[in-house]
Amino acid sequence: MKCRRCKAPAVIDIRRHNAAFCSECFLHHCREQVRKAIHEYEMFGPEDRVLVAVSGGKDSLALWDLLVDLDYEVDGLYLGLGIGDYSDESGVHTRQFAQERGLKLHEVDLPTDHGFDIPGAAQVTRRAPCGACGLSKRHLFNSTAIEHGYDVVATGHNLDDEAAVLLGNVLRWETGYLGRQYPVLEASDGFARKVKPLVRLGEREMAAYCVLSGIDYQVEECPMAEGNRHLGFKEVLNSLEDRSPGAKAAFLSGFFARGHERFQTEADQVLLAPCPECGAPTTTGGTCAFCSLRARAGVVPVELRAGR
Amino acid sequence: MKCRRCKAPAVIDIRRHNAAFCSECFLHHCREQVRKAIHEYEMFGPEDRVLVAVSGGKDSLALWDLLVDLDYEVDGLYLGLGIGDYSDESGVHTRQFAQERGLKLHEVDLPTDHGFDIPGAAQVTRRAPCGACGLSKRHLFNSTAIEHGYDVVATGHNLDDEAAVLLGNVLRWETGYLGRQYPVLEASDGFARKVKPLVRLGEREMAAYCVLSGIDYQVEECPMAEGNRHLGFKEVLNSLEDRSPGAKAAFLSGFFARGHERFQTEADQVLLAPCPECGAPTTTGGTCAFCSLRARAGVVPVELRAGR
Repeated sequence: MKCRRCKAPAVIDIRRHNAAFCSECFLHHCREQVRKAIHEYEMFGPEDRVLVAVSGGKDSLALWDLLVDLDYEVDGLYLGLGIGDYSDESGVHTRQFAQERGLKLHEVDLPTDHGFDIPGAAQVTRRAPCGACGLSKRHLFNSTAIEHGYDVVATGHNLDDEAAVLLGNVLRWETGYLGRQYPVLEASDGFARKVKPLVRLGEREMAAYCVLSGIDYQVEECPMAEGNRHLGFKEVLNSLEDRSPGAKAAFLSGFFARGHERFQTEADQVLLAPCPECGAPTTTGGTCAFCSLRARAGVVPVELRAGR
Repeated sequence: MKCRRCKAPAVIDIRRHNAAFCSECFLHHCREQVRKAIHEYEMFGPEDRVLVAVSGGKDSLALWDLLVDLDYEVDGLYLGLGIGDYSDESGVHTRQFAQERGLKLHEVDLPTDHGFDIPGAAQVTRRAPCGACGLSKRHLFNSTAIEHGYDVVATGHNLDDEAAVLLGNVLRWETGYLGRQYPVLEASDGFARKVKPLVRLGEREMAAYCVLSGIDYQVEECPMAEGNRHLGFKEVLNSLEDRSPGAKAAFLSGFFARGHERFQTEADQVLLAPCPECGAPTTTGGTCAFCSLRARAGVVPVELRAGR
């Protein structure tokens, strides 16, 4: 198996591109895919200040690395979720990555700065922890970007992540979510622009990118995400991809090209007002969902929580 | 396990309805699902003459039986496809069903009436036989209905069939097909109305209906459909259904309720002209696809075909 680009011995093959690459050309391939995504969806330009949301996992560290390589002005934001050892180790990987490269890293710690953690939030809401976690991330990524004057928040959602979310949205025809699922969400009053530059790269490519470029990332999956519906959707999509390489990318890019616009009507009709507590724009007309969560989850004393 | 309706011992449970039924109440359940589908999508009324396309398999024989039970005026149409023993046996089951019940059955035989069969058509087109088969069925169901003055053509596509087709259309965002996938296609110049009254009933329910009501159907799958893409999509949907009962029905009915209308624009913009050979409406502007296929497939002498 030879590298498609330089004919040297290949180290990885990518069936959906019907191509194999040597280490160096594979890293080039990843940069090109990110460059194409940024260009295709007009995500940002060299004049924009980008804040990349970094979890310490393969996707977000690779994204930060790729954006720096592509000469964008990009700082990191790490959000401490208070999920025991998993969060501690994720923080170590993130700080080490930033220090080694001399990159600027912002940190927000949910327990220290907001008085609650994700396990506690899951307990008071009596729902899957992923709900409270996603809500907290969306809120704090945005508020940190606004506070520090970033134009754009970039997240490490890859092709597999987005295709799984899309499958979930399509299976239930969640028209509102379908109208908002796109690689770029434009800035609006109180909201920074949100972009997903990894939509053209799969999970396996991101892991290989980290290994081949020497990025030491948090390998463990989040211990709270077990049984998450999206893991089932990923399995289903992987079985379709095995049968028909490229099926996953065609599903996602076809939606962006021909499906998404048909669901935009509802998504645009959302009315927003500032939260009286934190000033963030919210649809509720009262306290925003994050401040409500903080008010409820912050009052559970740590020693009273289940499993302690 | 007791029957939800009459509390007698149940013979079948249907997880997505969280219900079990005795034999008699199960047949009632199936009739109710068909009645609901006909009503919900305004398929036809007691004044309409319905032609049901019958293959001799479980779905189409059950559909004919159900429509007769519901007191509609409904005759059958059997299309001989020339697929060896499979077609011979399918014809026997269909004729026997009609004779036993004193029902009127039209027959069109592809080899006798049009000079070709599906294996021969697949060979000249060098494509999967399902393409030529679907094309021939659509053409002959419609032309027979028009010729004999039927208002409506009813086919036995069930929930599993339609959900698998939908998944295939969604995975590639085939916007034209998505605009035409609906339980009712209205009549237009040269086209009878097309309806699918089994969209609320799954494959397993249709097999049980035939067994419990003593319908002797063709159990074999078509020998030419092996490796058909839709079989893979059915497997995928079955694994999602196992995890989450009702997922398949929610996917299909959610599309009809909230997805379909968003894809209708292209579907409506099709321009039609009559085929110079047979007079059927066609988009090609020249000879229709069926007459073209007949012209090509009819010239292959049977003894020169592969596998003979």
